[in-house]
Parts: sequence; structure tokens; C-alpha cells
Amino acid sequence: MPGLGPNEEQAEALIAERLNRLRMRLAEEGCPNALITGSENRRYFSGFKAGDPMLTESSGALLITPDKQYLLTDSRYTLAAGKEAPLFEVLETQRGLAETLAGKELFKGGLWFEAPYLTMEVFGQIKYRLKNTVFKNLPFSLNRFREVKTPGEVALIQKALFIAEAAVDALRNSLEPGWTEEQAAILLERVFREKGASGPAFETIVASGPQAALPHAEPGPRIISEGELVVVDCGSKLEGYASDITRTLAVGQVLPWQKEIYRIVRAAQLKALACLSAGKTGAQVDKAARDHIAENGYGRFFGHSLGHGVGLAVHEGPSLSPANLEPLAAGAVVTVEPGIYLPGRGGVRLEQMALVTEDGCRVLNADDNFYDF
Amino acid sequence: MPGLGPNEEQAEALIAERLNRLRMRLAEEGCPNALITGSENRRYFSGFKAGDPMLTESSGALLITPDKQYLLTDSRYTLAAGKEAPLFEVLETQRGLAETLAGKELFKGGLWFEAPYLTMEVFGQIKYRLKNTVFKNLPFSLNRFREVKTPGEVALIQKALFIAEAAVDALRNSLEPGWTEEQAAILLERVFREKGASGPAFETIVASGPQAALPHAEPGPRIISEGELVVVDCGSKLEGYASDITRTLAVGQVLPWQKEIYRIVRAAQLKALACLSAGKTGAQVDKAARDHIAENGYGRFFGHSLGHGVGLAVHEGPSLSPANLEPLAAGAVVTVEPGIYLPGRGGVRLEQMALVTEDGCRVLNADDNFYDF
Repeated sequence: MPGLGPNEEQAEALIAERLNRLRMRLAEEGCPNALITGSENRRYFSGFKAGDPMLTESSGALLITPDKQYLLTDSRYTLAAGKEAPLFEVLETQRGLAETLAGKELFKGGLWFEAPYLTMEVFGQIKYRLKNTVFKNLPFSLNRFREVKTPGEVALIQKALFIAEAAVDALRNSLEPGWTEEQAAILLERVFREKGASGPAFETIVASGPQAALPHAEPGPRIISEGELVVVDCGSKLEGYASDITRTLAVGQVLPWQKEIYRIVRAAQLKALACLSAGKTGAQVDKAARDHIAENGYGRFFGHSLGHGVGLAVHEGPSLSPANLEPLAAGAVVTVEPGIYLPGRGGVRLEQMALVTEDGCRVLNADDNFYDF
Repeated sequence: MPGLGPNEEQAEALIAERLNRLRMRLAEEGCPNALITGSENRRYFSGFKAGDPMLTESSGALLITPDKQYLLTDSRYTLAAGKEAPLFEVLETQRGLAETLAGKELFKGGLWFEAPYLTMEVFGQIKYRLKNTVFKNLPFSLNRFREVKTPGEVALIQKALFIAEAAVDALRNSLEPGWTEEQAAILLERVFREKGASGPAFETIVASGPQAALPHAEPGPRIISEGELVVVDCGSKLEGYASDITRTLAVGQVLPWQKEIYRIVRAAQLKALACLSAGKTGAQVDKAARDHIAENGYGRFFGHSLGHGVGLAVHEGPSLSPANLEPLAAGAVVTVEPGIYLPGRGGVRLEQMALVTEDGCRVLNADDNFYDF
């Protein structure tokens, strides 16, 4: 086995620490063995990167027993898995996960699983093959382990965010009437790559004119015209970590109704950021923005939640939504993205990312003071 | 409701025809109502595009009852859903799928579901909310409906393939020692966008030198050197349809061992294409290539299956693998991609796409006669 460089040693220590925290929690809950099938959790606890997020089929699972950890994956990934997850024994799943689990005497006392990331099909196969095993849904979400970031993780997220922000800046400087939405998306993603990102973290949104009233519009061949708003929502991915930014650009002269909703959305965002702090609930922060929009008469035009955590997944905990009544923890990284969407006319959404701290928050964007018009 | 243009009318007729086929099959099997949660199946049977494949959370489901069809999605997608799926009644899932299903008297006599695309978590919620409903795993895969393509679908796949092929050609003409793998990937994806693709269908693979021995390597900062092989595996996406192509490029002088495995892989591919026809099984076609590689002494260095279907999903049925003992149907579109991977040294993979016909197959690539070295 080749010697490890300092970065690899650090990476191993990080994984060892995460496994340690996980095992302590599993022991507390009385969990004998855990099967990890969520792709971000698999990466977080093992370092195993492989598995294209665009492919719908699974590319592996972790099995955590009290004294050993296994990575089960198919032949496409076994070589990479050996490199990326040196603390794990790699098992090749030639005939599927269930078969490999059944073929080895790997665990005793039962197997607990991740219900959000295990399909009825795979569970059915496992249950059929492991007739004497007691199965249980893990009573806590492994995603929660990922919510509080280390400084190293925050640095990666911020680096990915700076790249996305630079791309939006480049677009702002180039965009003119006559461009298509697709052209704008190409420019953004070219900057991502040029600046070292591995690619987009999600499908880039460029929504112009009435399309801007669709919170998740796909960029199309639509030509952007003078006097329209363009909602640009994009994020790059860097070493597995995502970023997420939204700006609403105006092309040409800005109409009074556009200016009005822009100002309301930006003020709502600033109110939410002023409210954001460890100890506050996601619902409280959401309410700070939502109340401002409602007070200005646009309450029914803000249909989504205010924000979400970002990390290895572009959407993860904690959620800034009316439904999240739990206090936020320091170290979480969240988006703050209010919007107003007027069907048939257009919309505005503005999104910053922030690190939750003990006494407030730290905006991670390079530009914390923007105002596009 | 606005009038429909001729393309929209065609699209509606296509969806109506698919729903008709689906309902006939559901009736045959005695299925009272079906819940469709697979994202490609959702799109295939409704036209609903929304839902970023890079986001892990679900963005909706279809409910097919004997006389009506519903599309359940959250507020991010309801406007788009109304446009894209005019044959469906759109229901906004404010508190999740289970809650919306339970809140309406939509179906009687039970609910059958897609086990491969329903998580244990969502099923648990649905079962909890719908206490008097009888649930059953659909006894056939809805994916099978997508295997045989219409001429319109083949045309889209081929258009996406020509774009990917043009990108590989552009790379072949530019690639020089000193380039990084990432640079090569950037070039490929720039061509995708310039030629009108919506983006890559999966994470572009550029694997050079010893990395080429990893069938699913991520492109990295590795510098490509004189005398190395570079496996380039990429595909663009166009109107939802994927393409998939692999070429192995040589940089500079080609060494005898490289030429040897290249020739074996290409010959194996041609043997498989000569064998490919409706009525043959996936296993027979796989064997045609595998036997050739084994006869030349490299059997243990070809660890994956020969190919897979391509359509709305980049990996779908039918599979060209030793496990597929079913006869192939005319109208399926498959990849034929044998490889030889020598750990520590490098590898070769070559991939064409072909339409299965009654009396053979039609290669869909523009270049059916390539030989890179």
C-alpha cells in the first residue's frame, strides 16, 4: 500500500472521526448494524465519490458493523472505491446488494436501514435473502450528521459559491436583448468549468419574461427582450460540495412594477438574514421574509419555502420553512431565497448563502451588498 | 385554454396513446389504480418534464385511475406541470404525496406502486395515511413500455448522439499532450451546448493513462501525456432523450499493447453488432463480444456488461448482459460497448449505439466505420 500524503492523511482522519460519531450514535440507539444507501451519506462516511448523480440506478452501499465497515459496489466502481475509501473493505456486488449481503457472514443482531434512500424493491430483495435478520428503519436521519459543517467544508462551499457568483457577474456584463436563455446558461456553465468547478450542482435556471414566474423553469430557446426580468439560479459543484445563487437581472429599462417587487424581495431577504442565528427556528427565519412580502400585498405570490441547507447535496437540512420548528445549529450553511412570482408577467428571486453562527450569520457570497436595479 | 399548435396536438396524441396502452395492461393485470413515481416513467406517460434529475428529492407522481389521471407535484412545479401535461389534472402536494392522496377521494379498490421507484419512507407515509387501501407492487415494470421506441424517439436519440459524436470529433482534433482531463471534458460539454443539447446526459468521463483502467473515472486535473490512451465516454441530452458514445483516443505514438487491445475490443464490438437482431437475447449479443475478448486472453479484464438500452434514461432496458435471457424487440435502442481494462496500465472501451431491427440492427452513429489507431 502506498504511503499517504498529508492531504490523504487528513481526509482519512476526517472519515475516521465521522465514523466514530456515527458508531457512538448507533450504539446509543441500540442499532446493531447500519446499511447506508443515501448517496451523499455514503460519500460523507466513506469518502467514496463514485456514482454519477445523474444516473438513477444505485452504485453502492455502506455496511457499518460495530467493529468493521464495508463498501458494497459493482465492478464499475470497485477500483475507485479502493482508492477513495481506504478505511473500508470493498466488496463487489456481482448479483446485487441482497446477494452480496446474504453471501457473507458480515453482521449479527439485525440490520437497520435508511428508509428515505432504500427502495421497496431492494428492501424486498434483501428481506427475501436474509430471512433470519431483524430489519428496522433507522430512527434518526443520517443526513443530520451532515448539517453542521467543518471549516474545511465551509471553505469548499464558499469556493464553489465564488465560482457561481463570478459566472453570474460575467453574465450580467454580457447579457443583451436578443440572447436566448440557453446562451445565457452556456455562458454560466463555461465559467464554472473555467474556474475549476467539476460542473453544475443542479440544472441551471435562466427564466426570462413570463417564464420568470415559474420558480423552476428550464432555460429554452426563448429570446430575451428589452424590458424583461431574467431570473438566474445556478450553482457549481466542487469536490462534491454544492453552491447555490440566484440573481434577477433586468434587461434594458426597468418598469415600475419590476422595481417594486425587486425591492420587496431584497428587503425580505435582508430581514431574514438579520433574523438568522443559531437558536432561531427555520420557521422563524422563513416568517421574517414571508411577513414582509405579505405586508406588501404579495403574500400569495411566494409559494415556496425561504431556504435550505447546502453541502454534499444541494438541498439538505436544515430547512428554512414554516414546517421547521427546530432551532438551527451553528455551523449550518443555508440559502436565503425569497421570491415573488406573478403568473403571466414575470418574477423576482434573490438568493444568498449564509453560515449560521452563535450570534447571527455570516453571508458567504463575495457580494453581500448587491442591488441589480 | 389556448389553442394547440400542430406539434402540441401531436404530443398530446402520443401521450394519449401511451396512456391507452398503459390502461389496457393495467386492466389485464387487474390493477385498480397505479401510482407512478419513476421520473422517466412519469415523463413518458404525462409529458411532465420538470424535476431536475440532479436533485435527489422527488418532484411528483402520477396517479392513473380507470377514468382519470392526476399529476401530483409541489408548488415549484405546478405551473409548468399544467403546461407540459395538459391531459392531467394537477394537484399541488403541499404536505407531501401521502397527505394529498389521503385528502382526496381519488381512487377505490387499491393502489399498485412501482417498487423500484418508491422509497420505504414514502410508502410508510402513504400506508399510514391510507389505512383501508390495499397496496400491491406492480407485477410488471413500467420501464418496459419505454423499450420500443417510436421513429420520433429514435430521431431525437440520434440527434443527441450526433451532437456527442461531433464533440468527440472536436476533441480528437484538438487534444494534445499537456491537456488535462478536465479541459477535455470542458471542450466536450461546450460543443454539446453549442449544438443545441440541453446538457450532458451523465457525468462526462475522460480517463487517461492508468485512469483509463477505471470504467467510470471522473475527469481530474491529471495531465495527459504522450503515449497514453484516453477513454472518452460522454452523451448529450436533447428534449429529455439521452445519447451515449465512447471512443478511446491515443495521444502521440501508439504502443503495441495499446494497439492490441484496441483491435480486440473493436473486433468484439463488430461481432456483437453482427449478432444484434430482434429475437436474439441480450445474453447472446453480450456473448458474441465476450467470447472474442476471452479467446484473445483478456476475458478477466472485461468486467461489465456489453450494453444497455438508452432513451429518457441513459441506462434502461433492454440490457445486453449475460443475465438477460429474453429476446430483444425490434425498436429498442442499445449501446454496444465492450472494453478491456488493465489495472495500473490503462484501458480501451468503444461504444456505438444501434437500433434493433427485425433482421439485424442499424448503427445510429454518424461514423460506423471508425478506427482511431
